[in-house]
Formats: sequence, structure tokens, C-alpha cells
Amino acid sequence: MIFSDPASVAVVGASDDPAKWGHWLARGALTGHERRAVHLVNRGGGAVLGRPTVRSLSELDEAPELVVLAVPAAHVPAVVDEALAVGVRGFVGITAGIDDRVIRRIREAGARLLGPNCLGVFDAATSLHLAWGRFQAGSLGVVSQSGQVGLEIAGLAASSGIGVSRFVSVGNQADVTAAEALLELVSHDLTTVVGVYLESFGPGIVAAMSELREAGKPVVLLTVGSSVAAQEAARTHTGALTSSLDVVDAACRKAGALRVPTPASLVDLAAVLTSGVPRGRRVGVVSDSGGQGAIAADLAVANGLQVPSLSVVDGLPAGASKRNPIDLAGAGEQDMANYARAVEVLVRGGEVDAVVLSGYFGSYGEDTPSLEALEVAVAGQICALARRSGVTVVVHSMRDDSAAVRALRAGGVPVQHTIERAVASVGHASRLSGSSPEVATRAATTGPFHPGYLAARELLSFVDFPQAHAVTTTADVEATTLKGPFALKADWLAHKSEHDAVRTNVTNPAAAFEEMRARLGPGTYVLEEMDTREHTVELIIGARHDDSFGPVVLVGAGGVHAELFRDTVVELAPVTPATARDMLGRLVSAPLLEGWRGAPAPDVAALAEVIAQVSQTLAARPDLAEIELNPVRVGPDGVLAVDALVVSGITSAGPALSATVRSEPAVRTAHVSSDPAAGPSEIRSAHPTSF
Amino acid sequence: MIFSDPASVAVVGASDDPAKWGHWLARGALTGHERRAVHLVNRGGGAVLGRPTVRSLSELDEAPELVVLAVPAAHVPAVVDEALAVGVRGFVGITAGIDDRVIRRIREAGARLLGPNCLGVFDAATSLHLAWGRFQAGSLGVVSQSGQVGLEIAGLAASSGIGVSRFVSVGNQADVTAAEALLELVSHDLTTVVGVYLESFGPGIVAAMSELREAGKPVVLLTVGSSVAAQEAARTHTGALTSSLDVVDAACRKAGALRVPTPASLVDLAAVLTSGVPRGRRVGVVSDSGGQGAIAADLAVANGLQVPSLSVVDGLPAGASKRNPIDLAGAGEQDMANYARAVEVLVRGGEVDAVVLSGYFGSYGEDTPSLEALEVAVAGQICALARRSGVTVVVHSMRDDSAAVRALRAGGVPVQHTIERAVASVGHASRLSGSSPEVATRAATTGPFHPGYLAARELLSFVDFPQAHAVTTTADVEATTLKGPFALKADWLAHKSEHDAVRTNVTNPAAAFEEMRARLGPGTYVLEEMDTREHTVELIIGARHDDSFGPVVLVGAGGVHAELFRDTVVELAPVTPATARDMLGRLVSAPLLEGWRGAPAPDVAALAEVIAQVSQTLAARPDLAEIELNPVRVGPDGVLAVDALVVSGITSAGPALSATVRSEPAVRTAHVSSDPAAGPSEIRSAHPTSF
Repeated sequence: MIFSDPASVAVVGASDDPAKWGHWLARGALTGHERRAVHLVNRGGGAVLGRPTVRSLSELDEAPELVVLAVPAAHVPAVVDEALAVGVRGFVGITAGIDDRVIRRIREAGARLLGPNCLGVFDAATSLHLAWGRFQAGSLGVVSQSGQVGLEIAGLAASSGIGVSRFVSVGNQADVTAAEALLELVSHDLTTVVGVYLESFGPGIVAAMSELREAGKPVVLLTVGSSVAAQEAARTHTGALTSSLDVVDAACRKAGALRVPTPASLVDLAAVLTSGVPRGRRVGVVSDSGGQGAIAADLAVANGLQVPSLSVVDGLPAGASKRNPIDLAGAGEQDMANYARAVEVLVRGGEVDAVVLSGYFGSYGEDTPSLEALEVAVAGQICALARRSGVTVVVHSMRDDSAAVRALRAGGVPVQHTIERAVASVGHASRLSGSSPEVATRAATTGPFHPGYLAARELLSFVDFPQAHAVTTTADVEATTLKGPFALKADWLAHKSEHDAVRTNVTNPAAAFEEMRARLGPGTYVLEEMDTREHTVELIIGARHDDSFGPVVLVGAGGVHAELFRDTVVELAPVTPATARDMLGRLVSAPLLEGWRGAPAPDVAALAEVIAQVSQTLAARPDLAEIELNPVRVGPDGVLAVDALVVSGITSAGPALSATVRSEPAVRTAHVSSDPAAGPSEIRSAHPTSF
Repeated sequence: MIFSDPASVAVVGASDDPAKWGHWLARGALTGHERRAVHLVNRGGGAVLGRPTVRSLSELDEAPELVVLAVPAAHVPAVVDEALAVGVRGFVGITAGIDDRVIRRIREAGARLLGPNCLGVFDAATSLHLAWGRFQAGSLGVVSQSGQVGLEIAGLAASSGIGVSRFVSVGNQADVTAAEALLELVSHDLTTVVGVYLESFGPGIVAAMSELREAGKPVVLLTVGSSVAAQEAARTHTGALTSSLDVVDAACRKAGALRVPTPASLVDLAAVLTSGVPRGRRVGVVSDSGGQGAIAADLAVANGLQVPSLSVVDGLPAGASKRNPIDLAGAGEQDMANYARAVEVLVRGGEVDAVVLSGYFGSYGEDTPSLEALEVAVAGQICALARRSGVTVVVHSMRDDSAAVRALRAGGVPVQHTIERAVASVGHASRLSGSSPEVATRAATTGPFHPGYLAARELLSFVDFPQAHAVTTTADVEATTLKGPFALKADWLAHKSEHDAVRTNVTNPAAAFEEMRARLGPGTYVLEEMDTREHTVELIIGARHDDSFGPVVLVGAGGVHAELFRDTVVELAPVTPATARDMLGRLVSAPLLEGWRGAPAPDVAALAEVIAQVSQTLAARPDLAEIELNPVRVGPDGVLAVDALVVSGITSAGPALSATVRSEPAVRTAHVSSDPAAGPSEIRSAHPTSF
């Protein structure tokens, strides 16, 4: 592999000046000189780092397989031309601002380019160090769109003891993409867990993360954008309610990956995952101090973990509190072996999936050197207990570095200097313990798209709507056989409430019709029976095509309060009814669906079926941009959609578009009348909401 | 002061064995031997730490002012008796398990005891080191109920560079309380900020925190209990909705203190506050890397800060992005002075209250020693900018320790190794930038307590209720002049819905009355007009006496969803209408009170008045345990309380009871009928809900 284990490399721009990148890249390259030929190229000639250089690649006897470009952008075209002429097959583009034509020449020659504007590549397995920065060999594979963020991750991985197996700074991804760099890690033996920093999501990212997960290498994803949440006008509630990070999280769930907000949380989580995914969310806390135990327990619950009470606590020292958190109450200080005994009680008891040990352990030897050997021995016992039991063990130590701390880290037990990092990493990791959502097959649906509410009802015939019919005259209204109270709607308007184009609880339909037609003009109106059932719960169900991740489906609680509290759940579409049911269970307002305070329970199975159908319909129909049922009302006797909106969109690419290569498709709403004379119309040319 | 600067001390239990506490206490005491006489007492005699010892206190020529008790509990009574006999005035009770009678003897002799079961006291101003542990002299005053948590705070304060001015481990607080220890810091010159760890709240804590804040020494409070939130049955919604930590937070707001969940967040926040309280929530972010800047901006928003766009960005280097976050895009690496220039642009522009500098700064000199001097100089410039401008500046550095990092810390600019700690500390600190709630005077209310809904309406006559009257017979109902639809309620039942003792939307009141009386028996029923106004918003208003903090008032959004989402705000009572209005503004559902989507705005001024009155009534009436208006409906034309509950409670102590000395008063609900024959009754003997 060119970027993994090239037979020979050349650093163009190698320098003796430590203020220049070419200095550090040459230094790094030379660390692999026993494995491969390393050539240093410097226009001025002379020695660099005590090694001879050549003035240009053409002076070399043989073509290097991989060339590092560490020269100013103006010199790059000539260097690349020369390199391609002698048969170079790969380039690491450290230099920013490499011309598009140069990139094209590289690709046309069948060679590959990492970057440009990247920090390079490091591979611990092959002594390949063609990157700026220091790396400690270890087990974390790093792929980063930002060099500096990648370096921060690598630095934290070094201090946490897990180290880096391979580091790929993909820069501008002009040729080699982050997805490719991720896929290379699937068969990279040293790599047991993967950290990736991305600012945009090209095609293949979800698939690459899934493949890594299947290979037993969980992916931790760091991304940004929560503070610049789309304030762009959304055409539907579904658009407004599915933020970009919600969709990223849905993609992570589908891929079995985890999202974190910072480099430190990425590394902390990776350190836990190197010893395996916790089996569940139950945590046992051990401390020699009641205060530190209580702080840890509070944090555990705040991080979504459970701190169950314990039934089996035989073997704890006298005086220790036998609840969870276990407070050794000074017994740890009296005899350090009691720390290991408490951990043993927890891992043997089978009542917890993880153990957090918090407090002074790791400091004894530092404060009293005569205790160091004992402390290291106890650390070894704790590591052995973790390894043998498969229970996740994480230690918070008041000392960030000591012989015992190093022994724990070397034995696979992560150690954190603050309790928040210890507990948060366990909380994050435990989220992988559940099953990932099932993938539904895409169901084909029939019928072409037509604008208007009545057409939307027909297209979405898998869900029941209230009885309704089209009316265009007062006589139509007076002849109705429907039962009141009624709703009256203008068929062609997407944003009915903005136009005051919907009336509910109508008891005199003729009068309501005449008022509305006088205001909005002639056209097709819909007279509809109201849903007057009791014990119903209102929700919103929507689906749309996301620019980065393709079709997504949303379910949210309905009503004013639910909107204020943004109680919504998003998954990549399509979903099965089982996944839809899981989505419903994750709503904060889920208790309403279980029969709130003795009310009869709504038909959740029917509701899940509707969610699945909406998701499958959108996923199967690239001609539709969005589908929204809002509100949907579910009662003990089933589901009624009380309003619906379908938006058409002719997209120029497949469903999974790169965020960096956004299409700007022509879009019109379902409710644009095809015949402008039939009524007022809304003409929109906005591209699909990007969020 | 005995515990601040004693003229002489004695360590009883001094030892040469480093495994014994008496060893470390003797070592610590001797560090002050130039300022005061230090006596070491060891039953076996001989030398300790190269110093002569005496076998008992009576061998000394003069009585030491302060004695450290570091002997087993069994020996304590004899030592204390001897000490009191020779005139010792203070004791530091390291030993756990000191007998209550011994404590009584100390107090009766007019002496004082710190502890027992504490780690001792340290004072940097007087070289007093009578505590286990190492301390770096600095500016953070520490008072801790847990010795170990206190030590963790002290250790983190040392590594963050702020150090400890005074450390008091109050242990079991058998005599000296945490409140007393806090008050001593008011005039302690070295102390500029105070950190306190408490598990329970005795009287005087709020007052002590307020006094420190007024002295310009903000208090950061660490406490626990969020994971053991009261699952005890609450008698009112107010009880169920005001968790203990909500009340602690209300107490902190009143005192101008801040609550944090961990030792590290306490120290990080204290480090920011040593340079003053941020003026507001607007943050400017500077980084040399777009990725690191974006991560910091995301965290800022997640921590309640604003990242405003900037209008004045003259003076930034070419190539730097002039938005916020400011991305130096490599200009920082090219010329480190650009970091200081960017900070200068931000602090001079007047558009931000704080600056977060994130990334590689602090690492240049470590990686390239020739850059160290320049980096330290730039660090000095940044410190000077922060000092002169009064803008809060916090640095995140990928290096936890370097010459530049130390220079920043020495210059008063906090440095964090992870960006989450840097941003969270600014977010926490900025919460002090707002004004603290006004304190209302307690208004007296008239009228004795009587049980029942009608009596509650009378007691709470400051709020309007719908028209209603008592009915006991069908004839009463038929004679009503009220207008339907009606509500019908059993007057005497507190939990009407549990007993199905309320009917709403009644159009045939006689039939409803007969059905209800047949079920619940004869008694007083209330026939009431329904509130049929449009554009109303439903809320709950409640007040109760908290065991630790006295009267508290709650306002929350009403309705099923609001209950699920727990949208509530709590303050210590009484509050003024202005504070009540501020409470309303903090509800997530506050937009409903501003006129949601063009609806006419409800009368928020009237609503605030009712909240203030409820709070003042409860605060003025120790005979009332709880008041609850639920629901209250506010519309454009005013407030109507649609149901009310008053609970009486005869408390044995004042309103502010210690959590550790809980009273168990006899309580009966307002709706217990005084005449059992008049109707079914609910007899309750539960103590007031503790949460």
C-alpha cells in the first residue's frame, strides 16, 4: 500500500531549519530508514540532518514510491511533473493551495494524493512517519479532516496510554477520502478502535464506519456544527426539527459508531473501548471516601448510567458501606488490597456491567514511596479482574501519573485524572451495548406525485385519514353527508395556517366555506370530519432526504409544548416497525403512549407501522423531497392522520450526497397547484433545507 | 483566632512512622515552628522527626492554645480532660468516633472543636499546617465536609496554579460548622474565591455565602444528591417538582454562589473567578485551527454562552477568518504575536465579555526550544491584555505544562488541558454576571387555616377564582345562578382526581352531583363555573417549606407535556413580582407567555403578582406547610386559579432547618375535614416531603 508501507519515500523540501515543516517531515521519514529507502530532496543541496540530499527527484537512481510535498505551492507543479515522469505513485500533500490542474494530472497519471493541506500520515506497524508531530505507538487509528485536531487527539492518546496505531490527516480530500482512509483500518492489525474527526460527510462514511464496527473496531466520531444549527427557513416542521447533528447521530446509530464533542472525550471513550464494549449501563462505584463515591454516582446517573443497589456484597471489609456506591470508608487506606477486593465483589456479583473506582488509589506510592510496590501489585490485580471478567473497569485517580497509574494503563484499565472524564467515558461506551437499529428493505410505492392535500392523502394511502371530500361550491358543501364538526382546508396551500387556510371545529360549514372562498379565491377546498375520539395522543411524523446521509425519518411529540421542548427522534430511513417502536420509546413523552395515568393505551403498533411506511415511501421515491403527517393522532382504536404534506424534489444525484458537493435541485411543494387559475399558488425555488 | 493563627500548638499522637497520620500532622505543624511553639506528644516518648517529644500535655511548661488529636478514639477522653485541665482552648479532631460526652465537655469548658473525623486545617497566611496532605499556597479558600474531596480540590488547585489560601476540613461539624468556617474567610486577606463541599446544609450557609459574595469573594459550591432524587411520595405536585438540587440552586442564586458537580469544575471555575466575574455571556474564540475553533464554539453554545458575530476585526493578520470563532489559519504558527493581536482585537472591540484561546499555544517552546522565550513573552502580553481590559481570558493548551503555560497561570490567565474544561469554566462563571434575585419583604396575611377547597380559596383571596358556591343537596344545585359549563368538586378531598372527586365540562350539574354524592357520600361539594376564556396558558404555582433552606416557591408549565418535561423554576421565598417575572422568563415554555404565534399575550404582570403573593404568604405563615395553585390559567385579561390546595404543618423549628436535624412534624392536609361525620376524610401523618 502506497500510504501504508511504501518501499521508498522522498521528502521534497527537506530542511535543517527546525522552523520549517520539511525539517520535521525529514526527521520523521528517517525513523523508517531501516525498513525503506528514505531520500531527502533540497533545492539548495547539502546535508540535512547529517544526511546527503539531492537537488531534485531526477537525480535519484530509482523512483521513490511515495513523495512528500513540503515545498511552497509555487514549486509544486514542477515537482509533481518531475515525480510523475520518474514513476512516483503517491504524494503526501503537506503544502496548502495545490492547484486543481496539478491534482488532475496526478489522478490522470494513475497516482494518488493524500491532502493537500494535510499533516501527513503515520503508521506504527510499518515505521512510517511522514507527518508533522510526535506519535506514541498504540491501538487508536486516527483519521482527521483537520490536522491540528488530529494532533490533539494523538497527543491525548499518548498521555492516556492508548497511543496511535495509524494517523491519517486527509486535509482537503482532493483524491484520497476519509472513507477510504477509514476502510484501510479494517485490516490494520494494530488498530483496535478508530477515532475520526470530520467536518463534512462524503459518501461511504456510514458504510466505512459500519464495516469497521463489524470488524470489531468501534468508531468514535468527532464533528462540529451544533452551534451553527440551521436557522435557514425550513419548509416543513420535519425540516426545522431535524438538525444536522440529529442526523449525524442517526447515522452513527446505524453504523454502530458513537459521536463525541471533543478530542478528550474521543480519546477517553476509545480507551474504554479498547478493552471491549460494556455489556450494559449498570455501574458499580467504589471509593474510599463517601464524598467521592457520591460525586461519581451522581455523574453516572447524569451520564445515562444506572447505579443499581447490590444484593451480593460478601467479601467487603468491615466498616465498608455495602450499598452502591461502595464506600470503603478508610479500609482502602488501611489495606490497599481492599480496593481490589471491592472490584472483585462487583465483577463477580454479576450485577454491574462496569466499575468506576474513584479517589486516592494511584497516589499512595507517590506520597509514601514504601507503598509503591504494593500499589502496583494491587493495580495488577485490578487489571486481571477486568480482563478475566469482561466487566469494564475505569479508574479515577487524584494523581495523573504514578507507577500504579502506569501499571493500570498498561494493563488495559483506563485511568482519568478527573472523575467526570472517567464516568463520561463509561457512559458514552455503554451506548454501544444496545442493539443497533434494524435496516428495513425499501418498499416500492405506487402512484405518481400530484400536488395538493387530497393527492397527498392518496399517495399516503397506507395511513387512515378522516372522511373528506373536495368542495368547490356552497352547494357541494350543503350536499355533504359527512358528520360535523368539520375541518375546512384549501387543498392547494402547503402552509395553511400562515394563510389562515384551515378552519377546525366548524359547525356551519357553508358559512365557513363562503368566508374562506371570499378571502382565498375560487379553487378546490376540502371538507373533512374532525377526529373527535378521546384518549388520543398527537404526534408529528416526517421524512426527508438529507444532503449528507440520504433519507431520514422523524417522529416527534405534537402540540405546542412538545414543539417548544423539541421532543423528537430521528433515524436514517427506511426503518422497520420494530425500529419505529424503539424511536417512540425514546421520546421524552413516551409515557403518554403507554396510557397516561390510567387512560387506555393508544395503538402503538399501528403507529409504528405508519412511521415505517412513511420512511419506506420516502426512501423508495427519490422524486419526493419530504413527507409530513402533522398532526397524526393515535388512539386506542388506531391512527388518523389529520393533515399531510408531500413536497416533490428532483435531485440531481443519488440519495447520499456529499455535504461538500451539494446539489441545488429544483423543488416545488406538493401544494403548488398545477393550474394557477384554479387558485392562488405558492411558487418556491428554494433548495431543500440543508441542516 | 484559635484555628487561624494559634500562638502554640501540640500534636498528640506525633509519630515517626510515615504510615501513621500523626507523622504527617507533626511534619505539617513543624513547618510553622518559626511563628509559633510546636509541641509533639507521644505516649512512648523519644524523638519524632528529630525533635524531642513529651509523653503527655501536662509535662509541658505552658498550655498549647490548640491541640491536634491524632490518637485512637479510646485515648481521646483522657487527652481531652488533661488538655482542658491545663487550659487548652481548641482541638482539631482528626480521630473519628470521638464520644458525644467528650464533645460536650469541650463545649462546656468554652473550648472549640474542629471535627471530629476531619483532615484538619491549613492556613497559608499564618504557616499553619495542621492537616494531612500537601498544599500549595494561593488564593482559593476551601471548606469541606469530606476530607478526601477537600484534598482532591486542593490537589487540583495546586496543578491549576491558583493554590489554596486556607483549607478547613469540618468533618462531622460537632462544634465548628461549615457556616462558621466560611464566615472566617470573609476577612481572610489571601482568599479571593471560596470553594465549599457540603453534603448537608445547616442554618447560616446561605447567609455566609452571601456575606462572602458581598466581600467580593464568590463561592463555588460542590454538593451531591442528584442521583438519589427523592422518590418518596410527595403530597403535592409542588413537592414532586422541586428536587433538592433545584432548591440548592435557588439558594445559590440568592447568595450569588455557583453550584458545580465535581472537584475539577470547582477549581476550574475558581481559577476564572480569581480574575473577576465575566461581564456577560458573549465569548470570542481564537484558534490557529478551524477545527479547534469550531469545537470551542460548539461547546460555548452548549454551555449557555453566546458566540456573537463581530463587527470590528481590524488588526487581524491576512488570511485569518474574521468571523467568530477567529481562525488564524496558520498565522499563529507563522508569528506567535498574532495570538496576542487576536486577543487584543477581541478585548478592544468591546463585543465580547470573555475570550477563549484554543489550540497549540503553550506548546511551541516545548517542541522547538528556540521559540520558548518568544512564547513566554506573548503569554505575558495576553495576561496584560486580560488584566487591563477586565475581559475574562481563558486558554486551552494542548500542553498541560510548559514555560508559557506557567507564565499564563502566574499572570492570572487560567489554562486548561482540555477545551471542555476551558469553556465550561467560562460558562459557569458567566452565570454570576446577571443580577441576583431581589429579596422581598415578608407580607403578613390574615385569617386562620381551615381545611377544604373553599377555605383555601378564602385564604388565598389575592388571586381570582371562578365563581363558585357550596352545595350539599340537589336542590342547592338546581337553584344555582352560575353559568355552565360547570366544574363539580368534593370540597374536602385533597387528591380529587385519585378519588374521581372532580368533574369538569359538566352541563347537567344535578345529575353529576347525584352521581358523585352517591359514590363519595354526603358532604360539602363545590359547584364552580368553568374558565372558558380563549388564549389562556396553564401553569402551576406552589410554595413549601424546605427542610434545609426554608420557604421556597415554584412555578411550572401546566399540562401533561409540561409535567413530562419538568419545566419548572424554583426560588427561595419570598420573591418580589420582578423576581417572579424573571422566573417565568426562565421556563422553557416562556414563549407561550409572550403570545405564541400571534396569539394575544397573557397578563404576565398579574401572574407575577400572584407568584409573589403565594411566596410571601407561605413565608409569612409557618403554620402552612404547602400552598399550591394547580392549575392557574393566565389570559390576556388576567389570572384565574382553577384549583387550590393548602396543607397545614406545625413545624417544631424555624423555617430554615438543618438537613441533618430534620424535624418530623405532625401534618395534616388542608382538606382533612374537621368533622369526620361531614364526609370521607384523609388522615395523614407523613412528615413533610423531604427532597
